[in-house]
Amino acid sequence: MEAYKKLEAHFADISRFGEVRAVMHWDMATNMPSGGAKARGEQLAMLKGIHHEMVTDPRVGQWLEEVGDGEGLSDWQQANVAEMRRDWLHQNCVPADLIKELSRKGSECEMVWRTARKDDDFARLAPYLQEVLKLTREVAAIKAEAFGVPLYDALLDQYEPGISSAEIDVIFDDLAAFLPPFLEEVLAYQATQPEPRRPTGHFQEATQKKLAQELMRRLGFDFDQGRLDTSHHPFCGGYPTDVRLTTFYDESNFLKAIMGVLHETGHALYTMGLPPDWRDQPVGKARGMAMHESQSLFVEMQVGRSEAFSRWVAPIYRDIFGEMDNDWSAENLYRVNTQVERSLIRVDADEVTYPAHVILRYRLEKAMIAGDLEIADLPDAWNEGMEELVGITPDDDRDGCMQDIHWMDGAIGYFPTYTLGALIAAQLFASADEELDGIEGLVEKGDFAPVIGWLGDKVHSVGSRLPTNELLVQATGRELDASFFKDHLRRRYLPK
Amino acid sequence: MEAYKKLEAHFADISRFGEVRAVMHWDMATNMPSGGAKARGEQLAMLKGIHHEMVTDPRVGQWLEEVGDGEGLSDWQQANVAEMRRDWLHQNCVPADLIKELSRKGSECEMVWRTARKDDDFARLAPYLQEVLKLTREVAAIKAEAFGVPLYDALLDQYEPGISSAEIDVIFDDLAAFLPPFLEEVLAYQATQPEPRRPTGHFQEATQKKLAQELMRRLGFDFDQGRLDTSHHPFCGGYPTDVRLTTFYDESNFLKAIMGVLHETGHALYTMGLPPDWRDQPVGKARGMAMHESQSLFVEMQVGRSEAFSRWVAPIYRDIFGEMDNDWSAENLYRVNTQVERSLIRVDADEVTYPAHVILRYRLEKAMIAGDLEIADLPDAWNEGMEELVGITPDDDRDGCMQDIHWMDGAIGYFPTYTLGALIAAQLFASADEELDGIEGLVEKGDFAPVIGWLGDKVHSVGSRLPTNELLVQATGRELDASFFKDHLRRRYLPK
Repeated sequence: MEAYKKLEAHFADISRFGEVRAVMHWDMATNMPSGGAKARGEQLAMLKGIHHEMVTDPRVGQWLEEVGDGEGLSDWQQANVAEMRRDWLHQNCVPADLIKELSRKGSECEMVWRTARKDDDFARLAPYLQEVLKLTREVAAIKAEAFGVPLYDALLDQYEPGISSAEIDVIFDDLAAFLPPFLEEVLAYQATQPEPRRPTGHFQEATQKKLAQELMRRLGFDFDQGRLDTSHHPFCGGYPTDVRLTTFYDESNFLKAIMGVLHETGHALYTMGLPPDWRDQPVGKARGMAMHESQSLFVEMQVGRSEAFSRWVAPIYRDIFGEMDNDWSAENLYRVNTQVERSLIRVDADEVTYPAHVILRYRLEKAMIAGDLEIADLPDAWNEGMEELVGITPDDDRDGCMQDIHWMDGAIGYFPTYTLGALIAAQLFASADEELDGIEGLVEKGDFAPVIGWLGDKVHSVGSRLPTNELLVQATGRELDASFFKDHLRRRYLPK
Repeated sequence: MEAYKKLEAHFADISRFGEVRAVMHWDMATNMPSGGAKARGEQLAMLKGIHHEMVTDPRVGQWLEEVGDGEGLSDWQQANVAEMRRDWLHQNCVPADLIKELSRKGSECEMVWRTARKDDDFARLAPYLQEVLKLTREVAAIKAEAFGVPLYDALLDQYEPGISSAEIDVIFDDLAAFLPPFLEEVLAYQATQPEPRRPTGHFQEATQKKLAQELMRRLGFDFDQGRLDTSHHPFCGGYPTDVRLTTFYDESNFLKAIMGVLHETGHALYTMGLPPDWRDQPVGKARGMAMHESQSLFVEMQVGRSEAFSRWVAPIYRDIFGEMDNDWSAENLYRVNTQVERSLIRVDADEVTYPAHVILRYRLEKAMIAGDLEIADLPDAWNEGMEELVGITPDDDRDGCMQDIHWMDGAIGYFPTYTLGALIAAQLFASADEELDGIEGLVEKGDFAPVIGWLGDKVHSVGSRLPTNELLVQATGRELDASFFKDHLRRRYLPK
C-alpha cells in the first residue's frame, strides 16, 4: 500500500505537469504574440525534458514491482496500477537514444514534407520518410517484445489500447467490402434529391461565437469549467475542470465553425465527465483516442448531423443571423450536413467516405510496418487503394499519399482510431436510443441532458477503468460491432 | 569558463521556468474558468517546488566557487555572475524550514487579515502578524549576516539591491520635512482654481480597450511582443518578447483604465527593452522594483499626467468617445489628473501625498524589524504618523494600519521602492528633458519615440549590469537625488 501511495503521488505530479504543458500549448495557439514563439519553443522543450525525467524516474519501476499484483487494492486502484504499468512500459522500454533519434528524424521529415508536398515531389520526401519508418519499426519491435503483441499492435496500443489489429482487420475488411457499393447507392439516391444549398451571407465572427457558445451550453458544456477561444487549427485542450476548446471562424460559412464546435464539444464533454476522484491519476484519463473520437463523432455525426438536430437548430440559426429564405429550412440544412462525395482529401471527407480513407491508410501503414510495402511503392499502392475504396485516383501525390502529416513523425497506428471512433459512436448511439426510448424526440426538443447523461454514465465517468471492449460490453451488451455503423449509414443515406 | 557556461545553462533553465510560471499566473488572472482554480493551485504549488529545487541546486554553489572572481569573463558576464551570486545567496542562506514556516504563517496571516480588516478587528490580527514579523526578523538576521548588511537592508535587497536604508533615511527625512508644508501650499492653491470635473458618460469597454491599445502603440508598445487583456487587478506580467499587460474597465470612468494602462505600459516598455542577448540570464533582468516603478511612474506621472500630454490626448479622447463639452478640455483633464487631496488610502493617493504614505510605512516597518515598535503599538504609531505626514487621522484600523496586504505575508522592505521609483523617474526625466531639448514639445505632438528611446538606452538595455546608483550616475550624472522630484512637484503643483 505504501508503494501504491508513492505511485499515486508521483503520477499526480506527472498529471499536473501535463496540465501545465496543455495550458502552455493552448496559450501558444490562442494568445501568444508572434514575438513570443522562440521563448515558448525553449520553454516547451524544457518542460518536455522535465516531464520525461518524471515519467522515467527509476523509482516508478521499483514501486510497481513492490505493488506486484496489487493485492488489497480496490478495483479502481488495480486498474490505476495497470495503466501506470502500461505508461511506464511505453515510456521506458525503448532506449532514450532511439526515442531522441526518432524525434529528430521525425522533425526533419516533417520539415521536408512541408515543401515536398507543396512541390508534389515524393522522391524528395522518400528517403526521410524511409528513415522515420525504419526507426518506427525499431520502436515497434522493442515494444512488441515488451508487451508480447504483434509489431503493429505495439504501435496501436500507444493510441488506443485493448483492440488488436486482428480484430480491426476483420472489421475493416467487412467495411471495405460494404462501402464501395453502398457509396454508389448513396450517390445515385442523392442525385435524385434537391441540391443542398449552403446558407450564404456574411456571418460576423462575434455572432458565430455567440451561437457556438449557446449550442455548447445547450449540449451541457459548463463554462465554469471551460472556455471557447479561437485558433487556426481547432482543438480541444485542457483537462477536467478547465477545458479549452477552440475553433476558427469563416465569415462566409458559419457551418464550418459550428460543426467543428459540435465535434470538439463531444471531446470536451468526455473530458468534463471523467471521474473527478481520479482526475490526476492514469485511471482517471480518457480511455484512448478511439473512445475520444467516438465522443466527438457522437455529438457531431450521430446527433449534430441528424434530421432531428436540423429541425431543432434551424430556427436558432434563423434567429441569430436574422435571415429567412429557403436555405435555412431544416430539410436543406440536413441535406447540406449529409452530402456525400468522392473526394481526395481525408480531412474534408464526409461520414460515408471517411472510413474508406482511413482503411486505406491502415492497410498501407500496416504493410509498411510489416515490411510488405516499400516507401518507393507507396504512391502506386495509395492510388490503387483510393480507386478501390473511394472510386477515384489522385492526379498527384500532393493530394495523394503526401496529404497527411501523421506518418512524417512516425505516428503510425493512429489512423484506425478515427474509424473505430465512428463505429463506437454508432454502437453507443444505438444502445442509448433504445434505453432512452428514442433520442430523436429528445434532440428535436434540444433536450440533450438525458443523452449526454447516458454517455456520462457509460463512458465518461468510467475513465480508463475498463479496457475498450469491456467498456463497450458494459455499455451496449456486446464487443465492438460494425453493424451498428452500417445500419446507421443505411438509415441516414438511403431512401426510407 | 566551463563552470561559467554551466551556470549560464542552469540559469537559462531557471529563467524559462520562471517564464512558464508567469504565463500560468497570467492565465489564472485573465482566462481561467472558476472551476479550474483547484487544479491551478496544485499546478502552481508543484511548479514552485520544482523551481525552488532548480534555484537551490547544490551544483550552483560549486560552479560559483569555481568561477571565483570571474577572471577572463567580460563585463556583462562578470555582472551576470554577481547577480547569480546574489540570487543564490538569497535563495540558499536561509534554512528551507524557516522559509516554509514563513510561507505557511504568511498565508495564515493573510487569510485572517481578509476578515479582520473587514471587521476592523486589529486585536484578532495582531498575534498572526506578530508571528510573521518574528519569522521575518529571523530571515532578516540570517540574510544580514550572509550579506554583511544591517537587518532591514537585507530585506530591502530582495526588492531593490544597491540602495541602503542609511541613504533612504536621509532622502525620506528630507521629503518628510518638505511634504507637509508643501501639501498645505498645494491645497491652498488648488482651492483657488476651477474645480476639476471628471468626464462622465457611459464608456463602453470595447471602446476603452481600443483607446488603450492606441495609446500603448503610440508609446512604443509592440503588439507583436505583447498583449492587453482584462483582469481584476491590473498588472504587467510576461517577459521580454511576450509581455502580458492587463487592466480593468470601469464603464463610468474611463480614466481609471487609461491611467492604469499608462502605468503598466511603463513597466512593459522596460521589459520589452531589456538586453535581448541576456534575456534568460540574471544580468538581463530588470534592475529591481524601484527601477521598475520608476519606469511606470515615468510614463504615468512624468509624461501621462503632464499638461503637454493632456493637450495631445484630449482630442483623441473626444474623437473616440465622440463627446464635445467642456469636461474634455486639456485644461480640465490636466486638473483632473493632478488633483491633490489628503486621503487615507495609499493606493488611491495622488502624486503629492503618495510619498507621505510610503514614508510612514517605511518608518514603521523599519522600527518593527529593529524591535523598536511592538505590534500592539502599531495602530497608534500609524495614526500619529498619518497625522504628521498626511495631516489626517483614520477613524479606524481598517483604513489605517490594516489597509495593505504587504506585511501580512512578510513583504517588508518593499514599500520604499514605490517612492524611490518616483524619485528616480523625476531624476531621469530631468536629464532626458535636458538632453532631448525639452520633452514637453515632443509629448505635445505625441512623439514619444525619442523619450522612450532615451530610457531604452539609459535604463532598459542596461538590465542588471550596473547597481542602481551607478546606473543613475551613468544616466543622469549623479546618484539618487530627491531634489528633482521636489522641483517637479513645485513646477506641477504650485502657481507658475
